[in-house]
Amino acid sequence: MAGKKVLIVYAHQEPKSLNGSLKTIAVEELTKQGCSVTVSDLYEMQFEPRSTRKDIIGDLYNPEQFNYGVEAWEAFKNGCLSEDLIEEQRKVREADLVIFQFPLYWFSMPAIMKGWLDRVFVQGFAHNFPQCYETGLLKNKLALLSFTTGGDEGIYSDEGVSGNIRYLLWPMQHGIMHFCGLSILAPHICFAPEYASEEEREQMLTSWVERLKTIWEEEPIKCTAEWYYK
Amino acid sequence: MAGKKVLIVYAHQEPKSLNGSLKTIAVEELTKQGCSVTVSDLYEMQFEPRSTRKDIIGDLYNPEQFNYGVEAWEAFKNGCLSEDLIEEQRKVREADLVIFQFPLYWFSMPAIMKGWLDRVFVQGFAHNFPQCYETGLLKNKLALLSFTTGGDEGIYSDEGVSGNIRYLLWPMQHGIMHFCGLSILAPHICFAPEYASEEEREQMLTSWVERLKTIWEEEPIKCTAEWYYK
Repeated sequence: MAGKKVLIVYAHQEPKSLNGSLKTIAVEELTKQGCSVTVSDLYEMQFEPRSTRKDIIGDLYNPEQFNYGVEAWEAFKNGCLSEDLIEEQRKVREADLVIFQFPLYWFSMPAIMKGWLDRVFVQGFAHNFPQCYETGLLKNKLALLSFTTGGDEGIYSDEGVSGNIRYLLWPMQHGIMHFCGLSILAPHICFAPEYASEEEREQMLTSWVERLKTIWEEEPIKCTAEWYYK
Repeated sequence: MAGKKVLIVYAHQEPKSLNGSLKTIAVEELTKQGCSVTVSDLYEMQFEPRSTRKDIIGDLYNPEQFNYGVEAWEAFKNGCLSEDLIEEQRKVREADLVIFQFPLYWFSMPAIMKGWLDRVFVQGFAHNFPQCYETGLLKNKLALLSFTTGGDEGIYSDEGVSGNIRYLLWPMQHGIMHFCGLSILAPHICFAPEYASEEEREQMLTSWVERLKTIWEEEPIKCTAEWYYK
């Protein structure tokens, strides 16, 4: 939709991968709609995933005992977070929709993307107890997880060895996105592209573009335990 | 138990933290029992969490299109993984029990520990389809997640806003540990130490040591969906 701003947080090492193509066609389709699209290409940026002392510029709030959560919160309030974090927070603040594009690594995000969340979504910026969940600081924004899997769809079913795929969505969608107040659009999952034919992979790209055409009309999912564990 | 080997994968920036103390007293107690204990202190090691081309020494299997999973698998088979990964795999191979000691970050592990798993538990070493779950390559070893939370226990209950704590254990215990064949001991969780009194924190340390005294007699948990979502 014209005028909307989208941030794509993208974590794949290879531009020629399906993840790379999904990211590229999302940029194309959304730009065509008149959206303003920004991409944080984490591997290309060599984004730092580790939460350390280096994230705080200048003196610590408590130099005797380093507590990352407390220090990042204080640094946020005082404008003393490291440059890379301020820049990522700026992108999130401007965005109406944040799309996370990644290959599933161990039932979750690759470490480089987990580190982006560990370091960017600090207290004061994304939440500020009791401002969490419905009153989280990123309310009025949308989040969407778009990812590829190694295993096929059957593995991630109630009868499959890896259990219903919704089980692994809980920590990411509820524990991170919903906690910070984001409304969540249904995840977009491409199962086992490595075992798919060229035609099936093309179809995966086409489906994503088709979905994006009406993405602004979608209703967020109900983020209750029932959605995950009904 | 005398003769047993334990690896503690530890992720906290501050030695004086409760996580630091939990790690230290575990080393002391297990050593006292005659166990051989190794610690991978991830922040101290400045462990690299990002899965990149640098993990493969020499030529790639497919230089045209970089696929981390495929490349790491081939590199493992050919002894071409980077030194830091070979060293961590050696520690895992020797261990009877692997303890993960960390503060919960976003319903999961800190990125530095997630990256340890992304990079160390590669195909060929930890699993090799169809060798996963009951036949995963790390079978006959034990894993135990020992972590601290920000929120109190009530938040992580069926009625709490963050849902039953078992929901967030699923991706880590089932999706990673069980997938690789590890048997899982019940998690050890210290809720909200930041809001605890000095006496309560002391009690948390004492409870951990008490548990470790009989850790070798414990039965692994039943790693079925029912355990998590009953």
